[in-house]
Amino acid sequence: MTDSRVIEDFYAIIPAGGAGTRLWPVSRQGAPKFLHDLTGAGRSLLQSTVDRLTPQAGADGIVLVTGAKHVAACREQLPDLAEESVLAEPLPRDSMAAIGLAAAVLEQRHGDVVVGSFAADQMVSGQAAFEQAVREAVAAARAGYVVTIGIAASRPSVAFGYVRSGEPLGVDGAPTALHVRGFTEKPDAATAREYLTSGEYRWNAGIFVARTSVLLGHLREQRPALHDGLREIAAAWDTPEREAVLARVWPGLEKIAIDHAVAEPVAARGGVAVVPGTFGWDDVGDFNSLAALLPSLDAGDKVAGVASDVVRIETAGNVVVPQSGRVVALLGVDDLVVVDTPDALLVTSRSRAQQVKSLVDALRERGLDELL
Amino acid sequence: MTDSRVIEDFYAIIPAGGAGTRLWPVSRQGAPKFLHDLTGAGRSLLQSTVDRLTPQAGADGIVLVTGAKHVAACREQLPDLAEESVLAEPLPRDSMAAIGLAAAVLEQRHGDVVVGSFAADQMVSGQAAFEQAVREAVAAARAGYVVTIGIAASRPSVAFGYVRSGEPLGVDGAPTALHVRGFTEKPDAATAREYLTSGEYRWNAGIFVARTSVLLGHLREQRPALHDGLREIAAAWDTPEREAVLARVWPGLEKIAIDHAVAEPVAARGGVAVVPGTFGWDDVGDFNSLAALLPSLDAGDKVAGVASDVVRIETAGNVVVPQSGRVVALLGVDDLVVVDTPDALLVTSRSRAQQVKSLVDALRERGLDELL
Repeated sequence: MTDSRVIEDFYAIIPAGGAGTRLWPVSRQGAPKFLHDLTGAGRSLLQSTVDRLTPQAGADGIVLVTGAKHVAACREQLPDLAEESVLAEPLPRDSMAAIGLAAAVLEQRHGDVVVGSFAADQMVSGQAAFEQAVREAVAAARAGYVVTIGIAASRPSVAFGYVRSGEPLGVDGAPTALHVRGFTEKPDAATAREYLTSGEYRWNAGIFVARTSVLLGHLREQRPALHDGLREIAAAWDTPEREAVLARVWPGLEKIAIDHAVAEPVAARGGVAVVPGTFGWDDVGDFNSLAALLPSLDAGDKVAGVASDVVRIETAGNVVVPQSGRVVALLGVDDLVVVDTPDALLVTSRSRAQQVKSLVDALRERGLDELL
Repeated sequence: MTDSRVIEDFYAIIPAGGAGTRLWPVSRQGAPKFLHDLTGAGRSLLQSTVDRLTPQAGADGIVLVTGAKHVAACREQLPDLAEESVLAEPLPRDSMAAIGLAAAVLEQRHGDVVVGSFAADQMVSGQAAFEQAVREAVAAARAGYVVTIGIAASRPSVAFGYVRSGEPLGVDGAPTALHVRGFTEKPDAATAREYLTSGEYRWNAGIFVARTSVLLGHLREQRPALHDGLREIAAAWDTPEREAVLARVWPGLEKIAIDHAVAEPVAARGGVAVVPGTFGWDDVGDFNSLAALLPSLDAGDKVAGVASDVVRIETAGNVVVPQSGRVVALLGVDDLVVVDTPDALLVTSRSRAQQVKSLVDALRERGLDELL
């Protein structure tokens, strides 16, 4: 790649995991959220993520980390991705193991490079602003920081974690970067309102950019066993020993999120920076948040799919996801979520969209695993 | 038949027509309401109607009148029905033509007998009470009356027409029969309440019992052209000329309901009687009225179908019709109607159930005729 947007020695790690349970029945264990084109953009969330990162990481600078059972589907969606660019996890071991493995493999292959981790199942709008934030994050990462990109909070959301910023970082090439004072879990509504008012808090999009040496160095300090296991696997990755070492070491790795393993403890010591993102972002966590990303039909109804599959009379505010090819007919109903797939139908209200997980739990209890 | 319940020289006419549009998407043009087992009874409404009438009319005393396109489906559901017991209408010409044709054919075959017309798409509970009412109606019919069976109004329904009763009829074998003062169309809510209070009004179930000579005599007076056409067709029915005469005469017959053609004008002259029915009755006109016929699950949800196909969390008062084999998952919704068929899904509220017809109209306007 000779495109001037390419950032030298920068690699994008895309952890593609997470069931997206609150998006059932679209998102399934066998075909999770990231494989779906939820908004009708013509590309799945995973494809859009790769499209977004390729200008800066280059086509060869992208590493996908996903469950072994999703590798085939990912490759089908990303036919141009090189064989060695997909790392298959035998079992889910949470985000620290996934990102740490990719960082260790990339360091093994390329030396001490900058890596950025970007979840496969988020929506971003505003490519130029996104790239600007990544450029600043890489600059701050080169200066030795673990860098996150904080999303401007547009409402007092209780669905996201937050990152609290402090003083300007003062690093060349990262003029807007700030020190991070800490991370917080999803707040209650009152706290979320305080966060919004203060201006210090941004949504934590789970984006982390760092030099591999910095990231893995922190991991060695914080979680030495996990670090050593990942290094051992990485050393064997591009050798005939990969499968044997994976089989021996991977199952025993600690399951922990990168937030808890590295970001929070390092932030407490002043080692984390945040670049305020000015692009549109959403994690599309449930059907109500999906609605915000869809154009409105008359009366504010939203259709994620072929609008002509939906027949509406005296309706308002509904979110309809027609995915079975059947006609969905709505009469005199408001603010519902109707998701129609070939083997399962969901009807709930937009206000309950966050609780769809409880339905999935109920299906599991009934032994209807083929629907999960 | 030597069963003592059989009524001599009594024939049951079952007009099987009507699209049941308010029960879309279960009821379709190609498979109307009467072909469906709406309540999970194990028998379609048509089969139940035949089951109900056979003890009194005898297996050979039943005549089905239906559209030519439904004949095959009817025969499949009623394999024991004799060839000559099914009269196929080339085109729909409303209830007077259908019932009048059957009456004329029966008179041609059997002389002046008593016929009773019973719609194919109604629910009746209480076989003994039903038979008692039919016996009285036949007795009153033998005395020369056109006799209806009036259903005890249990609520101020605006969905049914009413029959207003007068003085006792005083006919042997029909001790509870009353003179009919008139018929009324579906009333508004205030009028329906007055009807209920007065005790004089019963629901018009569209049941008419009369001697063929009486029924056809009234028809000759009221609608001579229609009468003559039906007589002409009946004369040819059991001859090689049937199809030719049908093709020539049937399309020109007047489309009119038996209520308007005969019942109302004859009632005005004192020629109609009503036997108060004490059996349970419903015309299952829409999904809300279907709900009343289904057992309640917890929280008052109703399922017309396999209850295990429906997964519910924090729901109440919903009517679910799972007919596609898919799982229907409801979360936190109340008083909805969810009807799931292989090619169309309906979501509405119970209070809108009467308006489903407007959806069908909308589908027709869109040219989605294959769904109607």
